[in-house]
Amino acid sequence: MTADQPFGAATVAGDPTDPHHALPLTQALKLPRIAIEDITPTIDSGQFAVKANTGVRVDVAAKVYADGHDKLSVRVRWRALAEQKGDALHWHGAALRDQGNDSWTGHFTPQVMGAHVFVIEAWIDQFGSYRYELEKKHAAGVSIELELEEGRLHLLKAAERSERDLKRRLQAAHDTLQTLEPEAKVALLLEPDTAHLMAEAETHPYFSSSRELPLDVERERALFASWYELFPRSATDDAARHGTFNDVHARLPMIRDMNFDVLYFPPIHPIGRSHRKGPNNSLTAGPDDPGSPYAIGSADGGHDAIHPQLGSREDFRRLVAAAAEHGLEIALDFAIQCSQDHPWLKEHPGWFSWRPDGTIRYAENPPKKYQDIVNVDFYAADAIPGLWLELRDVVVGWVEEGVKIFRVDNPHTKPLPFWQWLIADVRSQHPDVMFLAEAFTKPAMMARLGKVGYSQSYTYFTWRNTKAELAEYFTQLNEAPWRDCYRPNFFVNTPDINPFFLHDSGRGGFLIRAALATMGSGLWGMYSGFELCEAAPIPGKEEYLDSEKYEVRPRDYNASGNIIAEIAQLNRIRRQNPALQTHLGFQLYTAWNDNVLFFGKRTADRENFILVAVSLDPHNVQEAHFELPLWELGLPDDAVTSGEDLMTGHRWNWYGKNQFMRLDPNYQPFGIWRFSAAS
Amino acid sequence: MTADQPFGAATVAGDPTDPHHALPLTQALKLPRIAIEDITPTIDSGQFAVKANTGVRVDVAAKVYADGHDKLSVRVRWRALAEQKGDALHWHGAALRDQGNDSWTGHFTPQVMGAHVFVIEAWIDQFGSYRYELEKKHAAGVSIELELEEGRLHLLKAAERSERDLKRRLQAAHDTLQTLEPEAKVALLLEPDTAHLMAEAETHPYFSSSRELPLDVERERALFASWYELFPRSATDDAARHGTFNDVHARLPMIRDMNFDVLYFPPIHPIGRSHRKGPNNSLTAGPDDPGSPYAIGSADGGHDAIHPQLGSREDFRRLVAAAAEHGLEIALDFAIQCSQDHPWLKEHPGWFSWRPDGTIRYAENPPKKYQDIVNVDFYAADAIPGLWLELRDVVVGWVEEGVKIFRVDNPHTKPLPFWQWLIADVRSQHPDVMFLAEAFTKPAMMARLGKVGYSQSYTYFTWRNTKAELAEYFTQLNEAPWRDCYRPNFFVNTPDINPFFLHDSGRGGFLIRAALATMGSGLWGMYSGFELCEAAPIPGKEEYLDSEKYEVRPRDYNASGNIIAEIAQLNRIRRQNPALQTHLGFQLYTAWNDNVLFFGKRTADRENFILVAVSLDPHNVQEAHFELPLWELGLPDDAVTSGEDLMTGHRWNWYGKNQFMRLDPNYQPFGIWRFSAAS
Repeated sequence: MTADQPFGAATVAGDPTDPHHALPLTQALKLPRIAIEDITPTIDSGQFAVKANTGVRVDVAAKVYADGHDKLSVRVRWRALAEQKGDALHWHGAALRDQGNDSWTGHFTPQVMGAHVFVIEAWIDQFGSYRYELEKKHAAGVSIELELEEGRLHLLKAAERSERDLKRRLQAAHDTLQTLEPEAKVALLLEPDTAHLMAEAETHPYFSSSRELPLDVERERALFASWYELFPRSATDDAARHGTFNDVHARLPMIRDMNFDVLYFPPIHPIGRSHRKGPNNSLTAGPDDPGSPYAIGSADGGHDAIHPQLGSREDFRRLVAAAAEHGLEIALDFAIQCSQDHPWLKEHPGWFSWRPDGTIRYAENPPKKYQDIVNVDFYAADAIPGLWLELRDVVVGWVEEGVKIFRVDNPHTKPLPFWQWLIADVRSQHPDVMFLAEAFTKPAMMARLGKVGYSQSYTYFTWRNTKAELAEYFTQLNEAPWRDCYRPNFFVNTPDINPFFLHDSGRGGFLIRAALATMGSGLWGMYSGFELCEAAPIPGKEEYLDSEKYEVRPRDYNASGNIIAEIAQLNRIRRQNPALQTHLGFQLYTAWNDNVLFFGKRTADRENFILVAVSLDPHNVQEAHFELPLWELGLPDDAVTSGEDLMTGHRWNWYGKNQFMRLDPNYQPFGIWRFSAAS
Repeated sequence: MTADQPFGAATVAGDPTDPHHALPLTQALKLPRIAIEDITPTIDSGQFAVKANTGVRVDVAAKVYADGHDKLSVRVRWRALAEQKGDALHWHGAALRDQGNDSWTGHFTPQVMGAHVFVIEAWIDQFGSYRYELEKKHAAGVSIELELEEGRLHLLKAAERSERDLKRRLQAAHDTLQTLEPEAKVALLLEPDTAHLMAEAETHPYFSSSRELPLDVERERALFASWYELFPRSATDDAARHGTFNDVHARLPMIRDMNFDVLYFPPIHPIGRSHRKGPNNSLTAGPDDPGSPYAIGSADGGHDAIHPQLGSREDFRRLVAAAAEHGLEIALDFAIQCSQDHPWLKEHPGWFSWRPDGTIRYAENPPKKYQDIVNVDFYAADAIPGLWLELRDVVVGWVEEGVKIFRVDNPHTKPLPFWQWLIADVRSQHPDVMFLAEAFTKPAMMARLGKVGYSQSYTYFTWRNTKAELAEYFTQLNEAPWRDCYRPNFFVNTPDINPFFLHDSGRGGFLIRAALATMGSGLWGMYSGFELCEAAPIPGKEEYLDSEKYEVRPRDYNASGNIIAEIAQLNRIRRQNPALQTHLGFQLYTAWNDNVLFFGKRTADRENFILVAVSLDPHNVQEAHFELPLWELGLPDDAVTSGEDLMTGHRWNWYGKNQFMRLDPNYQPFGIWRFSAAS
């Protein structure tokens, strides 16, 4: 092994070779001597970008090893593609540490938004291997005359291949070495300064590198945000008077005071007349029925227009600005579907799939039927590229109005390549734009939408009610592939989902679901009415009676029995505790009651450690013995720890591991405690 | 969606795209609409070939899905690279079945040795989607006038795009349809013949294909073989008389009668004189000490020569032929190391790494020291390509002498690219050649040696003694990545490993380990002496006293207390039961005793189902209640099943699930039972 041979040249570990035929020797000699494999985080071997956030640490790991017993050096390097200036790539680097059994780990923290790549690199640390052996033999009292000569040659060769100042320093070290007695030679060869000097002259022999693995860095709000959803038309105190953007201003202080970050509106575009739905999803609408805002498009315009009854474009701009003043970012719905009155049907009939009788099949998302809307055909001959570009331009148009967040309706029924293109295209110009996928479908597609670029995703949360279901789901979201490709936004309800659990749970049930959502993920959302504990269903269905999708629904937000104060406090706790600003860092702990979910959320350094206990029973008091996770803090079972109730501010000391809790649905069916070693 | 648009063209699913920058629309339009992912079996995303065997079924699975609700068609196609004739690739195909949640499964059975590839392909089954909807609507009594017209157009368009006879048949079906009443139209459109006709005219719209995934097919002996190891020089009845190849002939009938398949010799090459080891690994040898056969090379030659005391090349050839007549295939040792007397040191000094004092560092595999051998330096400037080619030629030379199996000494201390090249090179000409990796090192390297081409591998088996250890290890070998890249050869002992467990276990312990090895894997091996229950150790060490590595060791193979009959029967049972001809198909079952390992081995179709119970206690009788795995046969807990003791031939009926066993180390500390539903 010498440093100056051609095999020190950069070669790519993990590149597919041809294992079918005889491998030419010339190719074999280019294969990396050092194996680098099982790199995390990666998604589908680097086919898709891993999700990351500015200022949030990325932990990397790999198996790295080679034949024989030489020491290895391993590092991660990363760069933001946007930082590239001409030919000069702006790489950052950090060493990985050997954790035993060929596992190496390290981390880095991206600082800018946008596409990044990282690589794992390794080489044989020849001087390190030499030092290790010298140290061992010297300690064993074995003759090391030959080793000392080898040490001299290490310095000499390093000097020979170096230049200028480094050459002079290496030569000086070499010359000094020759003047010393054996013991002093050992000391010089083992001292850290010599190692640093040799590292400067490092030639990275047998250099091996993984391929560049993609990483997509988004702003922190992609990982941590509280969403509030409302229908602007319901910002009225009279169902007969259609609310407007201007009316929404009055609602902003209350939403701000609940500590929300995002204010999301269902579609604000003109609503079609043809096949307009009446109250409760009936197939005929009266003349004053407003229709579903998801039936987009009328003579007043399509996806780039505003429903006239909501106000003007100027009104919208003022609302966006006013919301921002209240710390609220507006999110719009991006629902790619058309009422039969949408201008596109006439202007671009080739974007649709027509049946033999000259009609278009109405939309379905089994078992739901949407008689008031039709879908475009993304692969219709005339739809390419016109439809794709138009849809992109619709999004960019709203981005230019200051909207940076889009909740996308039913993305799983549109082609994956379309999303991959659209999101990459928009974010290449506007890396702060985010898309939330409203897909409720099978797991593979749920994950894939994240892989092709969705920042956040709706989840199965509303259908996870038991302790076992919640523990399994929260855990799964913390594991590969989900943790790397999928940021779950736990909506407690939506205009489409009035969860069965809440139908007869009373106020306690709403507190339970609010606690689970706010503590379970950095991302959660609620649709207005939840804070008032609204739950009247269409009997036997998971839908709201008199759904706001088809009606103007004024509300009394001061109605008694609301949970506004609790929501405000839950959101405040989230803002104050980094461990709660992500769904990651979840760990289930033991509470000896199947009605009590008990878990921890903690930062990697354990500096912020929150314990959460939630009774899943909205009707009865639940009590449980539980285990404080003292082991997570490296404490013995009889340690004294400090607890702080984050809802009330009370503080106390816990003595030992085994503790007891009591959770009352009529008061507060959950506990949120900051946990630390007693000071 | 129409079939004749450009997006039906073959595109590659899983090809890395550039998720960093805006994705050009032209590229996005080439991305597959159908996602194909999580394909099994694969190793490191297709970087290495999955192991397979002629005549052994390969089960494949993938997640396949697309946007929307259309039906998909999914298939696997595979081909042997050797079957390629000019440009015509010889593909085979089989349909995959939808198992729910986007999982598709299927299988195929390769018939020829050598490199293969397989792909998973999918397209939208437009006529299938149409049939599904027609059937549903017809059953629901909904108006289907429009659907019938769409059906007619399906037939018409298929006729238009087809040729000759197919065109005529489609046109005829279309014309017939027009003459029918609605009910008869439905019947015609739904009948299987119409589906088959439409399948013939299939255009594979939205065709998506995985990349070609490599598969390496070896002969069955790579998966199922019983190895017997002996030192030819010990084929003598007098330690003072060096045994010869000719002496080995007399041993063949006994080894054949024990039903072994492979007869493996440690190195047969000239043994060096310099630093020759004496008895018990001592550093000085007497003039008559034979030395370790692993110290290869003397004035008599190197790796391509035969140690003169063993006989001539002609003797060797006659032994290979005689062994074959006894159903035994000779395996040789390939140990890439040299005594200091090896001709290469003088002929090719540039293949070695010389120290400043003109010596070469002797070999070490910590904590073991090999003062009698030195290693080559694969990356020494002068070693490329000479050394690599020479080593390849050594192997090919022995292949030409009829040796097709090589046990490779310490492969993990030689570069991985070297093995990848050498094995591919040899096997491209001789696909029936197999290499067994004698590596005992960390798991990543153990697996990687399989990935780069080793047919079989030594294992951790000798150090797995408790029920928990064995259950975990056998299970792990049945899981990815191990099941796809690593065929475990369970050696019960080797000249280097005299397991602690056997030191004082007596005969019962040897039966225990023989049962575990023979039942646990299709591949097992023993080094001579095991059948005689030899276990005298160097005190406190896992090494044999008076190791045969340094001495000629005659044995009395008729000594009392041997387990020759049991070994013969165990090997016979293996030959008669396909479930035992692989380490796969293992499943742990419940026996309520931590000293009793109870498991099943079964073929995929459950036709051959073997239950194995092994007491791990060589000293005491162990009893256990256990559960017959009735559920594996789809039987209720009170079912009657049939058992057959494969050691004795006894048959009985079991009644119900809960049973009892008694295992006596003085008689037979294991049970092997063929299990089936009672007839």
